[in-house]
Amino acid sequence: MKRINGTIIFEKPPCFVSYAAVGSKKEGEGPLAKKFDLILNNSNCEQKTWEKAESVMVKKCLQSAMLKANITTENLDAVIGGDLQNQCTATHFAMRDFDVPLIGIYGACSTMAQSIGISAIMAQSGAMQTVAAISSSHFCAAERQYRTPLVYGAKRAPTAQWTVTGAGCAIIKGQSDEKTAQIKGVTFGKVLDFGVKDITNMGAAMAPAAAQTIMRHLNNTGNDPLHYDAIYTGDLGHIGRILLLKILKREGIILRNHKDCGLIIYDRQKQDVMAGASGAACSATVLCADILPKFKSGKLKRVLFCSTGALMSQATFLQKESIPVTAHLVEISAVNTE
Amino acid sequence: MKRINGTIIFEKPPCFVSYAAVGSKKEGEGPLAKKFDLILNNSNCEQKTWEKAESVMVKKCLQSAMLKANITTENLDAVIGGDLQNQCTATHFAMRDFDVPLIGIYGACSTMAQSIGISAIMAQSGAMQTVAAISSSHFCAAERQYRTPLVYGAKRAPTAQWTVTGAGCAIIKGQSDEKTAQIKGVTFGKVLDFGVKDITNMGAAMAPAAAQTIMRHLNNTGNDPLHYDAIYTGDLGHIGRILLLKILKREGIILRNHKDCGLIIYDRQKQDVMAGASGAACSATVLCADILPKFKSGKLKRVLFCSTGALMSQATFLQKESIPVTAHLVEISAVNTE
Repeated sequence: MKRINGTIIFEKPPCFVSYAAVGSKKEGEGPLAKKFDLILNNSNCEQKTWEKAESVMVKKCLQSAMLKANITTENLDAVIGGDLQNQCTATHFAMRDFDVPLIGIYGACSTMAQSIGISAIMAQSGAMQTVAAISSSHFCAAERQYRTPLVYGAKRAPTAQWTVTGAGCAIIKGQSDEKTAQIKGVTFGKVLDFGVKDITNMGAAMAPAAAQTIMRHLNNTGNDPLHYDAIYTGDLGHIGRILLLKILKREGIILRNHKDCGLIIYDRQKQDVMAGASGAACSATVLCADILPKFKSGKLKRVLFCSTGALMSQATFLQKESIPVTAHLVEISAVNTE
Repeated sequence: MKRINGTIIFEKPPCFVSYAAVGSKKEGEGPLAKKFDLILNNSNCEQKTWEKAESVMVKKCLQSAMLKANITTENLDAVIGGDLQNQCTATHFAMRDFDVPLIGIYGACSTMAQSIGISAIMAQSGAMQTVAAISSSHFCAAERQYRTPLVYGAKRAPTAQWTVTGAGCAIIKGQSDEKTAQIKGVTFGKVLDFGVKDITNMGAAMAPAAAQTIMRHLNNTGNDPLHYDAIYTGDLGHIGRILLLKILKREGIILRNHKDCGLIIYDRQKQDVMAGASGAACSATVLCADILPKFKSGKLKRVLFCSTGALMSQATFLQKESIPVTAHLVEISAVNTE
């Protein structure tokens, strides 16, 4: 491993050996519907609460990714992941059923890139051999927890984003003959706060964090944005994407190949999701249902995958605090790309 | 690095180069009072809310540990840590003021051993050079969030534990000439659930997780418990300690050198803390105010440090769920010990 300022470059890149995405009804009506491993009929998963339902999705997603790579709990060294529920209970409750160590993390919607980054280092260092990175969210659970219970029927702001109900899981190995893509580098994000207080405008809050992490990674690697087929952000949505491009332009960077996972998973006009999608499952499911399969089919060779997270809680909102944000980034490349 | 089942052994052990502990009024009246780097006069830290106060303690603790090792933000590669607040806001809000990447983790009261474990791997792998592991909690914020607001004046159960108001921070390097102690190994915990539902009896819920992780570490290293000067658990308290010793005895292990951080930080009788102390700051402050200084003075040569965490939330409690638990463990040894 090589360190260039805050960027970690893998000389022997760890790789993705398997991945799976689970979604619910709304995800099953969107453009990626057919690419999910499992679409559940409704957001309850036959459970009594939304929180339990999310836990079931975490379980099914991990099981699916393990099955696809023929990995059992005996040869899985750890699961690294988290979710949006207070105390990350979706992940913790799911992990009761797996005889595997859990490294619980919290990065809000930046969780997927963060967990892949840690997993890649674990796998490459020899501390572990096979690690599963996982992240989930649930629209109904998140709305109740962060904003208002759905039964109140609160009107959605045009800047609001729709939390993805689902889970994404990627299994990472230090070395493998059966690899889909490899992880070339990681840049972990710093915590920023530009004073945004509107919890119905996450995109605006998170855009500066995405801009900073992408710039740090480009500077540290010396790569031009067009070195990559695409630069993905996690869930900036329509508003956040405009702001990101503006911030980068001001810094002299024209991003022609930017894509936001929050604008990929739903049909924004037809599915009435206002500014786009969000949630810890947003970048996780788009990675596992769309981006990694495109590496497999050879459509993608090099991407930056930058998940963005807004780190407020209901308590900090009620206490009139602004929203701290972060963004973590991993560089993914095809196996035979130099 | 060597892997023996779930235990990671460092062939070139990373080391502690600095540590700091911050406490509040109650911690300043306990047996470790003089060993803290900073005792605040009250639990408000001159802030309007307890949540903000905890954030201030995180900041002061990190600053203090950095200062002691003459480390600036430029040569700190990352902070790895978390707290008990929903969405770990104490840590995230504090990190707005540090120009350093944050890897946010959630492990409830197991956070300190978890963050040291990750930090040690990061530092030893070469992914990072200098990493700060940090964890905090706040009695008033935790009671309101997990149980009832203090102003309700709810009666405390005899099994209840008192959440430590404070923060502990340890700075870890891959290699250094100025080291206090070294990290020989890490065992990350699995998630267990023995059906305990009583949120005023965390010790009972967590004891099986501590027992499992300690046994896994002893089995994987082949060491007898008496190989260590002491085997510390995080915050089992009086009840949890009895259960831990019983579980281990049933498995044929007599633990003569067990100590629980939850029974060290306060005078249980005089300070009216019922079954002992708890909280993500409990094992973190005892490590940084008591255990690591004893390595410095040569009083300790080898210990196991096993932080224990109860992973429920207020939502899962209200939904009548049981309490999932985990325990992470790091093996610490003196610098010149083989």
